[in-house]
Formats: sequence, structure tokens, C-alpha cells
Amino acid sequence: MKNMNLSQMTLVSPKIFPSSQANERASGADNILAQAKVVMTLEDALADCQWVFGTSGRSREFPWPQLSPREAAAKIHQFAQANQKVAVVFGNEQSGLSNEDLQLCDFHIAIPSNPEFSSLNLASAVQVISYEIYQRFIIEENVTKNSLDLLEKATKAEVLGLLQQFEETAIAIEFLDPKHPKKLLPRIKRLFTKAQLEKEEINILRGFLKKVQSNQS
Amino acid sequence: MKNMNLSQMTLVSPKIFPSSQANERASGADNILAQAKVVMTLEDALADCQWVFGTSGRSREFPWPQLSPREAAAKIHQFAQANQKVAVVFGNEQSGLSNEDLQLCDFHIAIPSNPEFSSLNLASAVQVISYEIYQRFIIEENVTKNSLDLLEKATKAEVLGLLQQFEETAIAIEFLDPKHPKKLLPRIKRLFTKAQLEKEEINILRGFLKKVQSNQS
Repeated sequence: MKNMNLSQMTLVSPKIFPSSQANERASGADNILAQAKVVMTLEDALADCQWVFGTSGRSREFPWPQLSPREAAAKIHQFAQANQKVAVVFGNEQSGLSNEDLQLCDFHIAIPSNPEFSSLNLASAVQVISYEIYQRFIIEENVTKNSLDLLEKATKAEVLGLLQQFEETAIAIEFLDPKHPKKLLPRIKRLFTKAQLEKEEINILRGFLKKVQSNQS
Repeated sequence: MKNMNLSQMTLVSPKIFPSSQANERASGADNILAQAKVVMTLEDALADCQWVFGTSGRSREFPWPQLSPREAAAKIHQFAQANQKVAVVFGNEQSGLSNEDLQLCDFHIAIPSNPEFSSLNLASAVQVISYEIYQRFIIEENVTKNSLDLLEKATKAEVLGLLQQFEETAIAIEFLDPKHPKKLLPRIKRLFTKAQLEKEEINILRGFLKKVQSNQS
């Protein structure tokens, strides 16, 4: 991270922190470790982020917008130029990100690799993605800022609030049977992600659901 | 190396080889280690190579043709296509390549990095260069896939059908006043467009709206 000029690390539910072994291995970059934010859940980590990129080796149950590291770096640069907060999420060494984790992401990044030996170490994956981001920033440095006309994208907390209200409403009108939810909520989550919801859209949809709920009771 | 589909490694005067610790750390890629060629000098290692790229963090005494990893990968691909043998040389963890070593190289590769913390670990440098080489080879092979294309995107008629049902429902639950519609329907239309709705998503949303409507009447 420090080699590639990144500095904000958040650790989700680390087994050991602080760790003297980690500090030693960070040789020279231990300030990033010392400043790391520690939270209990991925939702907490992402609450104030507008764009979330998740790294994923394999294709999952639900196909998601998938980018190469280079494509992702271009988007991350755009978002950062527009002062939007971006996170890149990595899973742990053993099992990577769960499907649930991946559904919190706006985009998945897959690192193209040898199909017969495709899974990179965590450190290697972080290196590749950080490298691509840094290359993009230095390539763009001399280029005039392009005025990105991005609307105010909703934060993850806002999207999750909407999702929860949808769930409550769907149960209230008996569209969703909580005992047999099938794939409804993941599908809706995916749909909301694809839509890249803005704050105003969240307000409209929540107003609609509120009206449905109040007519119901 | 194995992640990036490289297989020929040569070790120059290794302190310990074979090494059980190295084999353990290679988890799954130990075949590359087992097949490694061991020689006493860098000259021996490069004897049958036509093009040699040396990785170098800092600019050296003698200015040399210097490339970014991406530029180097393009050249390496060209040379490989012409069946010319290429080597990329890395120094050891502590001191990198000596000036003498670097003078055996046709090109130097410098990995752009944070000027205040520029020196990458050996493993990270190998990862970045291998990654760029592999990306170049697959870009040239033109094997990029787009997993999102596989889903069955809804037709315009289906989207408009959904939009109409949304309008009817919104009027029925008095969320939308048809005399003062404001910008609600254009906003929803835009949201549906951004979401690139699939047939199955249309079905889910129409099912939800139908349930709202039937509870209302």
C-alpha cells in the first residue's frame, strides 16, 4: 500500500491487533498499520463509502459487474476526482470474500491469471490492485481534470436501509415468506447495486415503500 | 510466477537450494522451484537469452534505456512472438541488482511508485512484472470475457410494462397524484434504465407490485 501511495486501511474483525509480527513485517510502512481503523463488520467498514470494489477469484452464483484491475483503476480514479469515497475490499488468505461480502460491492475485480493456478496470495492481490491504481493516478496527473457530472451517489448505509425497508414491506404484504425467502433479497440487492442508486432515488423508493406499509396497517 | 503462467526460473548462486522452507512457501507452485535451473553467475544464467530486462529501483550511474513494466511487457511479448528468448532479472531482497548486473541488461524496468517509499519487496516486484507480462499476452490473445452478457436482458416493451404497472400502483396507493406527477415517472424510468433490468428482475418487481395492488383493492 505505501509503495503505491495508499494509506487508509480498515481491518474487519482481525484475530490479533495490534500484532508485533505484523509490525515487523511492515518494515518501514508500519505507520499505515498503526493508523488502521478496526471495525467488527464489513458493513461498518463500508458505511461511509460510495463505491465499493470487491476482489473475487471465481465467478459466483450471481453474476456481478466484473472488471479487470486496469478497468477498476480507471473507475476508482474517476470517482476520487469527483471526491467520492471508494473502498477496495479483500478477503482473508484462506477463503477470500463470501458471497454475502461480495453482494455489498458495486463492482467485482478479477485479476486475470493462469486458469490452472488462478488464486493469488492476499499480498499479491493487494500489490496488483494498488499498482494499477497508482499507475492510473500518475498517468492522469498531467491530464486536465475531466469534469465528471456524477450525481450524489448513495452511501452503503443508505442502500442497506432501503433494502431493509423493502424486506419489511415485502413481509408485511406477504410477498416474501421469511421462512422461505428463496433468492429474493440477494436478487433485489443485486438490482439496487446495478442501478448505482443516488440519494434522491433512495428517498423516492423509501417514500413509496412507506406508503405501501401505511396502507397495509 | 505460476499465477501468471510463467514457469522457467533460474537461480544464481543461491545460499540454500533445495530449501524445505522455500518448498513450503511455494504452496502449489513448488513444481517451478523443483525445475529451477541453478547456475553460479548471472552471465551463465543469461548465456542463451537474446533479450534481458533488469529491474532497477533507482536511476544508476549510467543512463540506460528505461521502461515501465507495461512498456517492457509489450516488448517482451513482441520478442516472444518472434521466438526470441527473453529473461527478466531481479536482484536479491537486500541490495537489488549491482551496476555490473544492470549492465548485462538490454533494458531496465523501473516500477513507478511512491517517491517517499519506492522500494518494493522482491516478491512484490516479481508479482507486478509477471502480472504485466501476463496481461499483455492475454490482451493479445483477445480472450477477455464479459460475464454480464450472459443474462437475459429485458426488452424495452417489458421495461415499459413494468413502468406502467408501477404508475398504476403508485396512483392506487396515493403515492402519485396524477394531477401533479412532478418528476416521479421520469426518475423511475431512469433508475430502471441504469439497472439494465433482466427478465427475471422484471418478473420479481411485477410480482411485488401485483401483491401491493391486490392488498389495496
